[in-house]
Amino acid sequence: MQVRFALSALSLAMGLAVAGSAAAAGKPTLSEADFEKAKQVYFEQCAGCHGVLRKGATGKGLEPADTREKGQKRLERIITWGTEGGMNNFDNILSKDEIKLLATYIQMDVPEPPEMSLAQMKKHWKVHVKPEDYPTKPLHGRNWENFFVVIERDVGKVAVIDGDTKEVLTHIPTGYAVHVIKALEHSTVEEAEYPGRFWYTQGRDGKMTKIDLWQKPENMLVAENKIAYDARDVAVSGDGKYVIGGGYWPPHFVISDAKTMEPLKVVSTRGINVDGEYVEESRVAAIYTTPNAPTWLVATKELGQMWQVDYTDIDNLRIEQINTSKFLHDGFFDPTGRYFQIAANASNQMVVVDSKTRKLEAIIDTDKLPHPGPGANWIDPKCGPVGGTTHLGVGKVTVWGNDPQGHADQAWKTCYTVNTDGPGVFIRTHPKSKYVWADQTKHPEPEVQQSVKVIDKKTRKVVKTLRPTTKEGQATVHMEFNADGSEVWVSVWNLSDSKKANGEIVIYDAETLEEKDRVKGLYAPTGKFNVHNRTEHVT
Amino acid sequence: MQVRFALSALSLAMGLAVAGSAAAAGKPTLSEADFEKAKQVYFEQCAGCHGVLRKGATGKGLEPADTREKGQKRLERIITWGTEGGMNNFDNILSKDEIKLLATYIQMDVPEPPEMSLAQMKKHWKVHVKPEDYPTKPLHGRNWENFFVVIERDVGKVAVIDGDTKEVLTHIPTGYAVHVIKALEHSTVEEAEYPGRFWYTQGRDGKMTKIDLWQKPENMLVAENKIAYDARDVAVSGDGKYVIGGGYWPPHFVISDAKTMEPLKVVSTRGINVDGEYVEESRVAAIYTTPNAPTWLVATKELGQMWQVDYTDIDNLRIEQINTSKFLHDGFFDPTGRYFQIAANASNQMVVVDSKTRKLEAIIDTDKLPHPGPGANWIDPKCGPVGGTTHLGVGKVTVWGNDPQGHADQAWKTCYTVNTDGPGVFIRTHPKSKYVWADQTKHPEPEVQQSVKVIDKKTRKVVKTLRPTTKEGQATVHMEFNADGSEVWVSVWNLSDSKKANGEIVIYDAETLEEKDRVKGLYAPTGKFNVHNRTEHVT
Repeated sequence: MQVRFALSALSLAMGLAVAGSAAAAGKPTLSEADFEKAKQVYFEQCAGCHGVLRKGATGKGLEPADTREKGQKRLERIITWGTEGGMNNFDNILSKDEIKLLATYIQMDVPEPPEMSLAQMKKHWKVHVKPEDYPTKPLHGRNWENFFVVIERDVGKVAVIDGDTKEVLTHIPTGYAVHVIKALEHSTVEEAEYPGRFWYTQGRDGKMTKIDLWQKPENMLVAENKIAYDARDVAVSGDGKYVIGGGYWPPHFVISDAKTMEPLKVVSTRGINVDGEYVEESRVAAIYTTPNAPTWLVATKELGQMWQVDYTDIDNLRIEQINTSKFLHDGFFDPTGRYFQIAANASNQMVVVDSKTRKLEAIIDTDKLPHPGPGANWIDPKCGPVGGTTHLGVGKVTVWGNDPQGHADQAWKTCYTVNTDGPGVFIRTHPKSKYVWADQTKHPEPEVQQSVKVIDKKTRKVVKTLRPTTKEGQATVHMEFNADGSEVWVSVWNLSDSKKANGEIVIYDAETLEEKDRVKGLYAPTGKFNVHNRTEHVT
Repeated sequence: MQVRFALSALSLAMGLAVAGSAAAAGKPTLSEADFEKAKQVYFEQCAGCHGVLRKGATGKGLEPADTREKGQKRLERIITWGTEGGMNNFDNILSKDEIKLLATYIQMDVPEPPEMSLAQMKKHWKVHVKPEDYPTKPLHGRNWENFFVVIERDVGKVAVIDGDTKEVLTHIPTGYAVHVIKALEHSTVEEAEYPGRFWYTQGRDGKMTKIDLWQKPENMLVAENKIAYDARDVAVSGDGKYVIGGGYWPPHFVISDAKTMEPLKVVSTRGINVDGEYVEESRVAAIYTTPNAPTWLVATKELGQMWQVDYTDIDNLRIEQINTSKFLHDGFFDPTGRYFQIAANASNQMVVVDSKTRKLEAIIDTDKLPHPGPGANWIDPKCGPVGGTTHLGVGKVTVWGNDPQGHADQAWKTCYTVNTDGPGVFIRTHPKSKYVWADQTKHPEPEVQQSVKVIDKKTRKVVKTLRPTTKEGQATVHMEFNADGSEVWVSVWNLSDSKKANGEIVIYDAETLEEKDRVKGLYAPTGKFNVHNRTEHVT
């Protein structure tokens, strides 16, 4: 029972652990090859919501006691068509054979996934360009501060696009399905060198890469490591010394040298949730650099705790374990950089943490499953400074006051809501823009899924619905402004054929809302990061 | 594989978990009744060193891959006669049948022990006397500040002895094999009420009890709870609001209301050790209240980290995870209350933590397996203020300077060592005494095991060897001074017949070193806590 494996891949280890025992006990079983296939599909499509240990989180628990009761046919139907409880339909994503394998796989015993020690991480650490060989000025003569770094999800790459010329400069190999890319933010520090120059990616497979935007496009990948088998987020310390990566499995975060990417320190996030129960699969949902303190905010999803981790002395590591709500997902700072606003999606709440006092500030009840992505802050005519979020569970944007000093009466209360046509994933704006943009990616109807809503900051009303694509198997997702706020870049994500370069970014004039340009030849583009906006903390 | 049990006892849960699987696989097996018996013996005699998960710590790992290779006969011999590696001989502690069962049990698969949620803990919480019914003055007219609270190990009781009259006032039922008893310390706080009045015990079975020394002896037990299946230490917050208990299994600490004993908050100590490896069985070895800060120091044994836990806001819990050495055991503060000196016994080191900066201060190399128990501080003619420890692995007292402000040259360096006749567990002194006392309880020869050494603080030499008992099956252990420092109380622990009241405390004149009195009728007395000395932090 206490078998553990020190193998380099989650998938391999899990395969070996189960093959024997299931067969011996006469339980649902698969050939070794089919098991491997099913396991890989589970990891890529299911583990994010249902967990490596299949105990459930955003999705339901899938432990054998429950799944065997449902049985093969019922499970196949659920995977194929989804449920009203929020389970996606996979009929256009997985083949019938894959769905069949998966339905069997989730009736089998849950294999015990392996740990990953610091020594194992160091074996995956590679320096492609030594820091002493870094260029001392940009080698390409381009306006790199208006570059866009774009996730090409399913091919495990990141594209770099020149925001001025709209040229795709390179597709850099990264980990699988990069979730987030982060750079050293300018506003957070005075002494750190080169804010915005180095970008760090976190792959779902735990591989982290370091990108140097001053290099020629073909040499931009300068270092990499691997900090988990399944991971999501990354952040750079305000002083530029450390980069932190957060694991889904093992549930931990890892602090590496930001210069070389050498892994230095691992901290487990296994712990006791806000209800007083031990959670083994207590995942790091997201990590953020605190603008006004030498800390990171680590969202421990299943614990419902925000951990404020002080990086000034990693051998004597100070952490505040701040009780909030379950399950923490993603969030963003208010414009002052003091308050952090994060979705606790299973609780239908936005949680606010005060990074100055390192305590919980407030909890805001919202509609179903808030999901702000990188979020949006703006000024409302009546409520003053506000923040807003889309929802995974309902077509709605919720807006709340976020200025407790200047507008105490409105602070951390819902100011207003705007209905959209379908549940969305991302909201975005820019201080120079009159509008707030919200996508509707989670709606099953192509017409809605392919359209984004543009909301007027003054009238609080939807002024336009834009549909960048009408092609089957494509969804519209994620907005990002360019450096001067004159353009809005929207991703057309080729969902159904995601390993081909059929994806696009459609560029709109931020003022007229007219289509202005298209960047083609992208592999399943999703999240985009404009160097200036992310470095200067423009949300 | 992911089977978990929500049962109320570790033993029961572990029994059910294993019985089936071992038999099915044709591995070494036991009847259910024998398995239960072996498991209970393992828990009481083996788990402390070898771990619930049998991965080893102070003792070797006992996982089936290793134990099956050794085989039944060899294992029986090791358990019976011990090893030169430091394994005790159990020939006079366990029967031949018990040794046989145990040798089989440790070849079987390691059962997965159950978790314990806050909700489960609350079910074990009992208030025997409501705080509003507490007396407002002592009800017995005795000098309660010279009471001794004495662990009666194997019967799960604590005796209260009047230090003036030497009468045994009561035997209070507590958890099994209480490891430590703690009270609110006077020097740590200004505002807290009644220092020294309330005592909190921690049983090895996780049961905690609260004792009110102002009550009549028969009513002294006022509240209890249970915070783990296997536990060791307890401490009261400096403000008297909270009591914290530390678990071996589950590996966590629990903060309870010190008034009512209601469990409030659980924090897991599962984590990554100083070598960068995940440790599931990462046990809380000991917990101490910091005199000069609103914190506890929690020693996480296998992690090699001291966690400084701030109790000012338990919903936004601040912890410093201070990297030190493995495996942390027990320790004591220097006389200023700033520096905490703790044994890292597997590393043969004493580790010093600065509770003001909340950082590692120093590491002192010592001889084999230092073990200071409650420790001893005194003034050495040459080195100035010093601390000292006995060793589990060698007959020696190691003494180091502990005054970095006044004696920087001597600080955290070995000042001198004194050889004794055998390895010991406890060292003790008093500011008014000329002597330092050290026991030799770990030596196998009765003559040595039954004798304690008295060392002159000035000459640094052993001036006397005292032997309070010559009876077979009895050992001498643990010294404690009375309130005015005129007496030294030494336990005679009836090891071999430990559930009978054949134990004694022998009282010596602290000046003349002559025997003065004997307190009889005690059940396996070990640790003793004088109310005044422990409350006023006299070490």
